[in-house]
Amino acid sequence: MARLRPTPPGLLEAFRAHEQALASNDAETLDRLYAPGPATLLGDDTGLLVGHDAVRACFATANRGAQRHLVQTHVQVIDDDHALVVAVTELTRGGRGLQTQLWARDEVGRWQVTAAHLSTPPPAYDASIWRLVGDPLVPPTVGLEQEAPLSGETVAVKDVYAVAGQRIGAGNPEWLLHAAPERAHAGVVQRLLDAGAAVRGVARTDELAYSLAGQNVHYGTPPNPKAPHRLPGGSSNGSAAAVSLGHATIGLGTDTGGSIRVPAAYQGLYGIRTTHGAVDRTGVLPLAPSFDTVGWLTRSAFLLQAVGDVLLPEAPTGSATRDLVTVPALLALAEPDVAAAVRDATPADARSEDWPLGDLDVWLAAFSTWQAWEAWQAHGAWLESRLDTLGADVRGRFERARDTDATTAKAAKATVDRACDQIRDLVGDRVVVLPSASSVAPSAADAQQARDATLRLTCLAGLGGLPAVSLPLRTVRGLPAGLCLLAAPGRDRDLLAMAAEWPAAAARR
Amino acid sequence: MARLRPTPPGLLEAFRAHEQALASNDAETLDRLYAPGPATLLGDDTGLLVGHDAVRACFATANRGAQRHLVQTHVQVIDDDHALVVAVTELTRGGRGLQTQLWARDEVGRWQVTAAHLSTPPPAYDASIWRLVGDPLVPPTVGLEQEAPLSGETVAVKDVYAVAGQRIGAGNPEWLLHAAPERAHAGVVQRLLDAGAAVRGVARTDELAYSLAGQNVHYGTPPNPKAPHRLPGGSSNGSAAAVSLGHATIGLGTDTGGSIRVPAAYQGLYGIRTTHGAVDRTGVLPLAPSFDTVGWLTRSAFLLQAVGDVLLPEAPTGSATRDLVTVPALLALAEPDVAAAVRDATPADARSEDWPLGDLDVWLAAFSTWQAWEAWQAHGAWLESRLDTLGADVRGRFERARDTDATTAKAAKATVDRACDQIRDLVGDRVVVLPSASSVAPSAADAQQARDATLRLTCLAGLGGLPAVSLPLRTVRGLPAGLCLLAAPGRDRDLLAMAAEWPAAAARR
Repeated sequence: MARLRPTPPGLLEAFRAHEQALASNDAETLDRLYAPGPATLLGDDTGLLVGHDAVRACFATANRGAQRHLVQTHVQVIDDDHALVVAVTELTRGGRGLQTQLWARDEVGRWQVTAAHLSTPPPAYDASIWRLVGDPLVPPTVGLEQEAPLSGETVAVKDVYAVAGQRIGAGNPEWLLHAAPERAHAGVVQRLLDAGAAVRGVARTDELAYSLAGQNVHYGTPPNPKAPHRLPGGSSNGSAAAVSLGHATIGLGTDTGGSIRVPAAYQGLYGIRTTHGAVDRTGVLPLAPSFDTVGWLTRSAFLLQAVGDVLLPEAPTGSATRDLVTVPALLALAEPDVAAAVRDATPADARSEDWPLGDLDVWLAAFSTWQAWEAWQAHGAWLESRLDTLGADVRGRFERARDTDATTAKAAKATVDRACDQIRDLVGDRVVVLPSASSVAPSAADAQQARDATLRLTCLAGLGGLPAVSLPLRTVRGLPAGLCLLAAPGRDRDLLAMAAEWPAAAARR
Repeated sequence: MARLRPTPPGLLEAFRAHEQALASNDAETLDRLYAPGPATLLGDDTGLLVGHDAVRACFATANRGAQRHLVQTHVQVIDDDHALVVAVTELTRGGRGLQTQLWARDEVGRWQVTAAHLSTPPPAYDASIWRLVGDPLVPPTVGLEQEAPLSGETVAVKDVYAVAGQRIGAGNPEWLLHAAPERAHAGVVQRLLDAGAAVRGVARTDELAYSLAGQNVHYGTPPNPKAPHRLPGGSSNGSAAAVSLGHATIGLGTDTGGSIRVPAAYQGLYGIRTTHGAVDRTGVLPLAPSFDTVGWLTRSAFLLQAVGDVLLPEAPTGSATRDLVTVPALLALAEPDVAAAVRDATPADARSEDWPLGDLDVWLAAFSTWQAWEAWQAHGAWLESRLDTLGADVRGRFERARDTDATTAKAAKATVDRACDQIRDLVGDRVVVLPSASSVAPSAADAQQARDATLRLTCLAGLGGLPAVSLPLRTVRGLPAGLCLLAAPGRDRDLLAMAAEWPAAAARR
């Protein structure tokens, strides 16, 4: 048996050098101890890195040196040049870790790791996803024995909704510190509880919901399980990650400029931004009331619809059709991989239309200006002396908001109103198919560029006050992307029904 | 390069058979797919199993078939008979998993796993440890900028203490359902907050704190990180596991008959049961008020003492000594491995004394009877119609409590009072060294036996109302055990100081 062979010379020394390099965060030595080439593997709780280049980049940026000591080491010798080392570690911070490494000796006799798998015990919970979490945090108002439409479902409530007894944190520690406990649940939270769902916890948000990236400088960036090492999308980032990871079944969020649709697209979830004004916003912290909407994320179209049955008003009766329209100019706003995925998932009977979108950049500018104006109206008085508590990107947006004058804002609002009419005319009684975001989940370095490109797509629903449902797709590289259905105000239930019936073969999840 | 070799015949078929067997929870096939012998390894989030027998036992009892599908598979071929397979999976419940397997072909050509390492994404949090957890759940009452003795520390509060705004759950869902939110923090919770500590969350407990095992039929058994697959000890099981895993730095619990000392011993933590009546029990759910005490668990003797500085009354001035005493008859109550560890960790100048312990069983019986009587006085009215909501072991104890008549109880109390005097006389002004529990952490099957044996040791502090501090040891097999220091009432601070100065070489952690 291989394991009865003696341990080959040099192996344990190399293993100890690896431990030592980890402890001292010695990226250079770690780099040398991993085999070169594209097949080298390093996997941990954040995902699997493939290839030495990816491994090297990780060592260069991440401090992997958790203080720990070995409590067990097992060596399975395969031959003179190969051995598997499995070690149990005890972490100084508490708990135990496990690591498995395949070591190989190269041509010049050096031992190197060709594959490593590292597990460390998780923290109490992921504080980038949750501020508070419980089993449950708030029980439903109907007993489990009663038949209720959302019995057994659990809600991750974005930290801009009132939960009775809890403060609203809005993604900013200073805000949380000064907040008073809420006396009542937000309207939609109460309705979800009354429908049998439990509140699982309070989920993180980008600061004051004024971002699409899903990063929070204070609490970290939640993971994106289906696109490791990429951004989760925001601002409903905690709600989205909670649903992606199965911590909750319903991610309650908001969508002003894409804060539901973008994380849905980046993480491969279903999501809806409801018709502006259609769903009660009582107890919801505003960002820009002209565009703010309630929305939610799920892992199934069925549940997305079931929540809609609880929260949405009755569907209007009218002459609306389910005719599908695609607009080449909108597809062209997305990266080729995303556009291709959307095109592939669009039924063949969709009609391609050329829209006069020459004013799109003007519309977007007006959207951003009026959003900024309203955001400052809502929070300027409080933020004025506290801008330095914000992360750089959100701070920049609020500084722009502060510097927007009333005349500019008023002009922007006039453009917004015109754009609203034009967009509603273009959409008409059909259902438009477009990309939910312009790209797959970007890396943190590409966040700003992704935001600028994505807003040109997402602002349409914002400007038009339209409902939008995002369906999960995969690009040819296997990364999540989103297909967005857009329709006239009030057609939320139609879109949810269409999402539930969307050809499964086309919507490659 | 090894990885450029072609995949050997049969390997992928074996890998797929393994996936299939996992999915269908086919223990027999899994058993066959793991190499026989003592060197086979299977590691996951619960620990590392060594040897095929341990692996087989695990497959036979645990349902490992998380619904999932493969999203990436990497094969590193070592030679015709060995290959490493690393696979990324996507779980139906959300999130991604990673598995690494070393496969080897045996003499008759069958592929078998010699080592496997499996990671799955953790749930939102471990609900066997926490009922509620936050970042923090309750902030300290003093700002971080202020100098406070416990600044930066985080407390896991056993679910028998009042936390303002939260209900007390007491480890029983029915209890939780009928509890009203507390208006104020328990006295010691308030003092910890005032000293700069934050409440991290509400930690699980054995039902109504009436057990030493650390199991809860409703919420599960928390892990014991240093003794995987063994019981964590209770009833302060959530607080203890939270500290063991680094989720919190202070585990606030209670100790009536050993509920701090037992988890401390089983998990290798420091713990104190305070002098009966010395620390405010306002806002603490009673079990048996004659014996109930406040206690806490930490990972360092220093912090154990720092908490004592906040919660304990000033030390009495007196003629007490730090002379150490060991009692062979008490050491003999422990398993040989635990007794040896305690003996090894006891300084050579400790004096061995023979105590007249012929009445120990009578004392223990009286302790149990009076505890039961008081427990029924406290909870009988409420529990009478709800005994069937309790787990079997706790229910059995409460049924015994219900059936205890006043005459028997009164007689037991007289014995308790006599025992108290005798134990205080025996301890005198010295410090007694004894095992904290009779054994290392037992398996679930041995819980009852361990409880019976351990209570003969732990009841001494209960009967005498004495403070007891548990220090972590390791047995020769590397499992945690506890050394207990026992002294006269009011000597809590002395014991904490001695624990902080205990010879490190002797106390093999």
